[in-house]
Amino acid sequence: MLSDKLIKSIIEKKSPIVVGLDPRFESLPADIRTKHLENDGSTLKAVSNALIEFNRGIIDAIFDLVPAVKPQVAFYEQYGIEGMIAYKDACDYAKSKGLIVVADVKRGDIGSTSKAYSNAHLGKVEINGEMISAFEADFATINPYLGNDCMAEFMDDIKTYEKGMFVLVKTSNKTSGQLQDLKSGDETIYEKVADIVCQWNQEICGETGYSPIGAVVGATYPEELVALRKKMPKAIFLVPGYGAQGGGAQDVLGAFNEDGLGAIVNNSRGIIFAYQKSNLDYKSAAREAVIKMKNDINQALEQDQKKYW
Amino acid sequence: MLSDKLIKSIIEKKSPIVVGLDPRFESLPADIRTKHLENDGSTLKAVSNALIEFNRGIIDAIFDLVPAVKPQVAFYEQYGIEGMIAYKDACDYAKSKGLIVVADVKRGDIGSTSKAYSNAHLGKVEINGEMISAFEADFATINPYLGNDCMAEFMDDIKTYEKGMFVLVKTSNKTSGQLQDLKSGDETIYEKVADIVCQWNQEICGETGYSPIGAVVGATYPEELVALRKKMPKAIFLVPGYGAQGGGAQDVLGAFNEDGLGAIVNNSRGIIFAYQKSNLDYKSAAREAVIKMKNDINQALEQDQKKYW
Repeated sequence: MLSDKLIKSIIEKKSPIVVGLDPRFESLPADIRTKHLENDGSTLKAVSNALIEFNRGIIDAIFDLVPAVKPQVAFYEQYGIEGMIAYKDACDYAKSKGLIVVADVKRGDIGSTSKAYSNAHLGKVEINGEMISAFEADFATINPYLGNDCMAEFMDDIKTYEKGMFVLVKTSNKTSGQLQDLKSGDETIYEKVADIVCQWNQEICGETGYSPIGAVVGATYPEELVALRKKMPKAIFLVPGYGAQGGGAQDVLGAFNEDGLGAIVNNSRGIIFAYQKSNLDYKSAAREAVIKMKNDINQALEQDQKKYW
Repeated sequence: MLSDKLIKSIIEKKSPIVVGLDPRFESLPADIRTKHLENDGSTLKAVSNALIEFNRGIIDAIFDLVPAVKPQVAFYEQYGIEGMIAYKDACDYAKSKGLIVVADVKRGDIGSTSKAYSNAHLGKVEINGEMISAFEADFATINPYLGNDCMAEFMDDIKTYEKGMFVLVKTSNKTSGQLQDLKSGDETIYEKVADIVCQWNQEICGETGYSPIGAVVGATYPEELVALRKKMPKAIFLVPGYGAQGGGAQDVLGAFNEDGLGAIVNNSRGIIFAYQKSNLDYKSAAREAVIKMKNDINQALEQDQKKYW
């Protein structure tokens, strides 16, 4: 089961970290930008080739240090078809290096449409009797606003192909509370979503005690993180908001269970663009940033008596 | 302003209808499937070429009858890069025929990521000083779960490029009530989202009295439709759920204001696959289905004294 694979990889690499592959063309190293602009002009193709080179460099630099990467599809979609070619390359190249791929797509729709999204990112499509993959990731992030049937459509592929999903519960952004924090009866809306995640965790759970149906809970709301951790003991938390968004090692501690497991903390810009605040090349800077983040989190876990290794 | 353009086109064509371009390869006419499987084998490329041929046929058959089409991106995304080529073709070809394109993408994310989605579907990306479009639609559908900042990021492009968005308020699927119908204080969650839409409508509104910030409200919940219509007088309603999902002309009446305007009703399968229940070819069947739907809705509006033409 994918949750077991992720937990085992976290333990093996001593690294509850996911590297966010959110490249922005204007933030890439100048030599990569210049090279591809010279090759292909000011085109989407130039950008796509630059993103591919950059991402492969990042993946080469960090694949032995972390269990997973998380490409944010919006940063590829904005470059059109060519951008989606770079997105697919990021997924495929990361998988070729043994990494688990979290497709940060935040999809969700009515039943048959959700199934199409599941086909796109976790499953396969049938063409004349042949089963073919489109964008093959391992986990996908899912928006719950449409209710259970938008999630249910992903379950077949999750079971058939050993995939998983992270349901948005409490997001890291400033206005996340506008709907998510509203109280209905004794619970907030995000707690209601957490209840749905718990139901799925009853239905499917791995031998490590963790389910492939996880939850997105932002590092920027540490108190909510602690309460939600208690509420969803079997869910792996995908924790955005570390680094550029303001969260630090102390802020994410609450995302971990007493066994020191159950969370992967995402850092995107703080790793892939670490070179901007460093004298190192972008790959070495990314590697150094991952090692620092890993040490910071593991040290905090040890002090909190949540050592897992 | 895009809302004015849409309202004027509805009046001109006497047709508050949007045709959903949600092609499934297995549902396409046999001759189209066979031709492209023979040309390209059982590949994503064969599917993409088949979707392109099919969509262009549908658009040719209905472009003079309706103001807008709504490609649902999930049905393209599931066919990977090749599928996205067909998606872009649907947008581009529809625009070349003067149609307004609603990108049914249901996107939404934290600030900077939402901006990337806005670039992808409504705006442009900057490459070395040049502004380039990725997937150029007119409206995009937006999921509100992350709160206002995920919507705010679309506003610049909406103002700069005369675009618009439809915010998911009350969706047409069976479990839409699971979160959307929860009461917080005196209001449901979907009413809270409606309040946000109203705020945007205060900020931007066209000369026809309608704003480019609209709302998705399902035809499958007619009572909610009536209440929401009163609550959001300036919002254009995008109404899914007509036809295959069970809604009829009487069910959508509540989506219209007293002026007979303010709504566009979507029908996907009931139009594009009308040929399956007809002796006509797929184009003629789609045209006939649009004409019938138009007559049914306009007749219901007339009986309800909401005639707008």
